[in-house]
Amino acid sequence: MQTSTVLLIADLVGVAVFAASGGSAGVAKRLDVFGVVFVGCVAALGGGVLRDVVIDAFPPLAFADWRYCVVAAAAALLVFFFHPQLRRIRRFVQLLDAAGLGLFTAAGTLKALDAGVPVVGACLLGIITGIGGGLLRDLLTGEIPLVLRREIYAVAAMVGALAVAVGTRLGGASLPVLLLGAGLTCAVRLIAIIRHWSAPVARTEEPGRTG
Amino acid sequence: MQTSTVLLIADLVGVAVFAASGGSAGVAKRLDVFGVVFVGCVAALGGGVLRDVVIDAFPPLAFADWRYCVVAAAAALLVFFFHPQLRRIRRFVQLLDAAGLGLFTAAGTLKALDAGVPVVGACLLGIITGIGGGLLRDLLTGEIPLVLRREIYAVAAMVGALAVAVGTRLGGASLPVLLLGAGLTCAVRLIAIIRHWSAPVARTEEPGRTG
Amino acid sequence: MQTSTVLLIADLVGVAVFAASGGSAGVAKRLDVFGVVFVGCVAALGGGVLRDVVIDAFPPLAFADWRYCVVAAAAALLVFFFHPQLRRIRRFVQLLDAAGLGLFTAAGTLKALDAGVPVVGACLLGIITGIGGGLLRDLLTGEIPLVLRREIYAVAAMVGALAVAVGTRLGGASLPVLLLGAGLTCAVRLIAIIRHWSAPVARTEEPGRTG
Repeated sequence: MQTSTVLLIADLVGVAVFAASGGSAGVAKRLDVFGVVFVGCVAALGGGVLRDVVIDAFPPLAFADWRYCVVAAAAALLVFFFHPQLRRIRRFVQLLDAAGLGLFTAAGTLKALDAGVPVVGACLLGIITGIGGGLLRDLLTGEIPLVLRREIYAVAAMVGALAVAVGTRLGGASLPVLLLGAGLTCAVRLIAIIRHWSAPVARTEEPGRTG
Repeated sequence: MQTSTVLLIADLVGVAVFAASGGSAGVAKRLDVFGVVFVGCVAALGGGVLRDVVIDAFPPLAFADWRYCVVAAAAALLVFFFHPQLRRIRRFVQLLDAAGLGLFTAAGTLKALDAGVPVVGACLLGIITGIGGGLLRDLLTGEIPLVLRREIYAVAAMVGALAVAVGTRLGGASLPVLLLGAGLTCAVRLIAIIRHWSAPVARTEEPGRTG
Repeated sequence: MQTSTVLLIADLVGVAVFAASGGSAGVAKRLDVFGVVFVGCVAALGGGVLRDVVIDAFPPLAFADWRYCVVAAAAALLVFFFHPQLRRIRRFVQLLDAAGLGLFTAAGTLKALDAGVPVVGACLLGIITGIGGGLLRDLLTGEIPLVLRREIYAVAAMVGALAVAVGTRLGGASLPVLLLGAGLTCAVRLIAIIRHWSAPVARTEEPGRTG
């Protein structure tokens, strides 16, 4: 297989996983079948659309290539019909989700650098590409975004985005830099899941809520 | 009257109806007068702004033509002062809302196709134009978007967007294609209201919440 | 100091204050340290990014100039570690917030006019620049936006945006018009705080909730 084919398949796997996460959130909130598909598509495509709107890529990839939208809708539909079975493969879904986060973040950072965004801004855009879909999913279903609460999720994205930025500065080619960034993000995320790492919360005087 | 005048009036009626829906939501949440007007404007103009930002139309119509903003603000203000009377004309408002949904969706799909967005993406953008304002309205007022819950709303938009895409592919002129798409969306929506149609919800094991 | 340096410093003070408001909201919702920084950055930079995306400024200032992002993150971090002490300087923070609102609104209106947006749309964009960050902050933390509830906040922004639009129409130079608009917004906001002004709420039949 060619490199571009490998990357496209990786990208679509990320889309499917994120769409499944959105679909699950929709099912949990008892949305109808269309709502489930819609939240799935937003979770899968939202981060990339935010990035493309900011870097003026027209039309955004999610609207330009029908495979993205179809894969997202199909994955959300599968969740709608088969969601009870998903619990059994929770670990597998977490692995795919970490891989998707890594790929989306690294690819987003690269695209922003290519479009001429300075390095700090490009890292920010990469992080937004990676976590944006999940953020929008939680906003649509009336939750405070999971990524903002106790979990090493955005931090993993930050590590990968920085690696891509540094690698590109040092003259690395796109593909190895992309894989390095994606791999780092994925690794940090998986270690955080396995070790139950979480970021600190500010001390507040409020009693209760211990643990 | 000329065609363009007819279309502008139809567009402004849609803006007024959607602004009234936003204003009602604001009044129900006890927002102050400015909040009511703001939510009204977002509900009326948000879908079109989302579309114009994605297809790089500059400036977005809502910012380019002062009549859009003024009509939206005026409609929301009317709701602020006269909202108790609105209940009596609920059926009429539902009819106008269905017409607005149809017009916004069909016009959004057409504009996206004109801007060079491929057909699946253009349908998506048309649906976003039609339902985006209501989505943002519900986000601002802290509700899970109505359109994602049990009602044939987005499905009606999807039918109209598809009709516009197919009609344009077959070489139809803009105006008849627009009216066909808008009419189909409006018809599906009205039939769904009259027959109390709703889309299926996934089975969950959770007891209670019957009905 | 040169005018441009004065304006940059003023802009960064606004960024820091808005980031602190976002950070406080994050701490109150018990977000982790990254969540606090993220909400702080969104509150500080969100309004400007919305404006830049609409007027097609590429890349948006917040992604183009690393100082914006770094100042926002640093201010949010300070809040994370020292938030209990912030209560003592509440009045000072309110003063800075009013100044930030004025500057952001006036600068946003000017930039929109410069980009060729008609006057009503430019005022709208100025208001969005001023209040957008706070709106997104409240959405992320699951609150109905404060600016939509009982307070003269958006009205103050509206006054400043109108002043900038009128001043520019009358041929005023950028800097005095900016200062006039920012000063007016800041003054209206401070007077509203001191006099406990608030905008009217629609009468509803619902009993209770008196006061």
